[in-house]
Amino acid sequence: MSDVKEILGSYSSDIIGTIEDELDVITPNNLQEASIYLTKAGGKMLRPALSLITAEAVGGQKENALKAGSAIELIHTFSLIHDDIMDDDDMRRGMPSVHKVWGEDVAILAGDTLFSKAFEIIINSDKELTSHAQINNALAAVADACVKICEGQALDMGFENRFDVTEDEYMEMIFKKTGALIAAATKVGAIMGGASDEVIDAMYEYGRLIGLAFQIQDDYLDLASDEETLGKPIGSDIGKGKMTIIAINGLSSAGDDSEKLLEILKDENNSQADIDLAIEILTKCGAIEYARNLAQDSVDQAKEVLEILPDSSSKQVLSDIADFVLERHS
Amino acid sequence: MSDVKEILGSYSSDIIGTIEDELDVITPNNLQEASIYLTKAGGKMLRPALSLITAEAVGGQKENALKAGSAIELIHTFSLIHDDIMDDDDMRRGMPSVHKVWGEDVAILAGDTLFSKAFEIIINSDKELTSHAQINNALAAVADACVKICEGQALDMGFENRFDVTEDEYMEMIFKKTGALIAAATKVGAIMGGASDEVIDAMYEYGRLIGLAFQIQDDYLDLASDEETLGKPIGSDIGKGKMTIIAINGLSSAGDDSEKLLEILKDENNSQADIDLAIEILTKCGAIEYARNLAQDSVDQAKEVLEILPDSSSKQVLSDIADFVLERHS
Repeated sequence: MSDVKEILGSYSSDIIGTIEDELDVITPNNLQEASIYLTKAGGKMLRPALSLITAEAVGGQKENALKAGSAIELIHTFSLIHDDIMDDDDMRRGMPSVHKVWGEDVAILAGDTLFSKAFEIIINSDKELTSHAQINNALAAVADACVKICEGQALDMGFENRFDVTEDEYMEMIFKKTGALIAAATKVGAIMGGASDEVIDAMYEYGRLIGLAFQIQDDYLDLASDEETLGKPIGSDIGKGKMTIIAINGLSSAGDDSEKLLEILKDENNSQADIDLAIEILTKCGAIEYARNLAQDSVDQAKEVLEILPDSSSKQVLSDIADFVLERHS
Repeated sequence: MSDVKEILGSYSSDIIGTIEDELDVITPNNLQEASIYLTKAGGKMLRPALSLITAEAVGGQKENALKAGSAIELIHTFSLIHDDIMDDDDMRRGMPSVHKVWGEDVAILAGDTLFSKAFEIIINSDKELTSHAQINNALAAVADACVKICEGQALDMGFENRFDVTEDEYMEMIFKKTGALIAAATKVGAIMGGASDEVIDAMYEYGRLIGLAFQIQDDYLDLASDEETLGKPIGSDIGKGKMTIIAINGLSSAGDDSEKLLEILKDENNSQADIDLAIEILTKCGAIEYARNLAQDSVDQAKEVLEILPDSSSKQVLSDIADFVLERHS
């Protein structure tokens, strides 16, 4: 499994180079620096790599999807910058977040600029590698994901101070906030790789499923990892009263303990003992296991969806990435 | 000249209907309401009307450009929402601005949503009315304008507390911040109307020129209108120390009075007497007349550019709109 990170890394330099070329022409300097900052800070590049690998897996070349994949990464970066403003998160990728360095105004603009550039980069795809129809379809996939990202963030903000969020509401939120862009990443890879409509739809579904698993794994790691690996205290979601799939399931399945769990979730000044008790409740009632199984089911389904593809090393990588989503510890 | 407003108004209902249809599906409710709010608050709809009229003037139908024109209005609205956050402007179109009603977080998201929808609406242009290539070219024009709008806003923010802004810097800023989207409006109209590359370029130039005149007229009205018509105090740009084309020209042409003018511009607590003195200096040295002539030259050039088009009532309307830019009083 460890070579998934290596494989993702092997696509990084092409993607980063494409992004840097695109952002290099932005003026004035502060806007350019704020726009390129998070790309330089480093990221997993999971989404754009998925685009390139998918293009290969459907029978195309990674070059076909290089611009569309880079655009997906720009959309991801744009959403991180704006989310960090909204959530007032001070750190990102181990560095002060964009609005902490340049202020909120420049951060809003940097996000907007990346957004614009994402569309521009796809439009400027090499016409020898991709047709107008492919470009249009890729743009449609990206625009659709962008709308969903905004809706997902709005839904997430609407969950604050609500403790009656249902599992359906939660699944819609994480699909829109996280799954939709991963699904768009694999979809544009399939489009640019020249896949049939049936395969394009299947690759969207694969992306959607690993996207859900990815988010559920985040919820799981918050309780099941350790502070050193995770880089933040265990149970911080509980401390913040966040409605994760685990909390939602726990509230409906913990029986007599539900009341105590709700009390801890509502309390803004929990002690570590409170959080430990909540984790104990969530473990005992099976909520943690429930989430873990849900994520595993998504991964299994994602791998089944891949069966539409002919066997190839790229198909195997996509299968390994699905497993990797649940193997990661941070 | 008065019928220009009527003509613009005659295109409004189609545009507003198209925008409302597009935004109607956004969830959750607060995001939808915040997204559609400024469109419902009413606007001149100058930009989308320009797209539709240009499509007609190049020999097409207004229906060809309806989606692209509506997208241009969404981009305009997106930029107003984000600019109002950055500039902390409390009012817009006679109503509290979006971030004052829903808060900054939802306002950032509403802007992002409109941005996404703008691209989506063009991508979903009726394929019987427009080809993939036309859609691609229109998207490229819009994405280019979006990047320029961000750059223009960043330049404008960079002018704060700077009193050595040159005329070239100012012209670049207003082109990017205001002219580029108006130029994109006429360009997408020409693209969707089926114009040749030469005519498309000419219509971009027409839009660029009236966009410059539009912004310079804003600077002029701040000094030459009256408070009741303008809806804000006369000379408010001077009060804020804003580097308008008039201030920039005045500082270099007012001779011995330049020092006093600079002092007033730098002072954040000017009396009305100070502002009146600045206006007197700017009048005497010819800076106000200079700006007025610059705007008039742009309008004259814009009308010359139109000569590439065959005579038609739509061509005449474009010519009247160029004049209207300098006839408006608010």
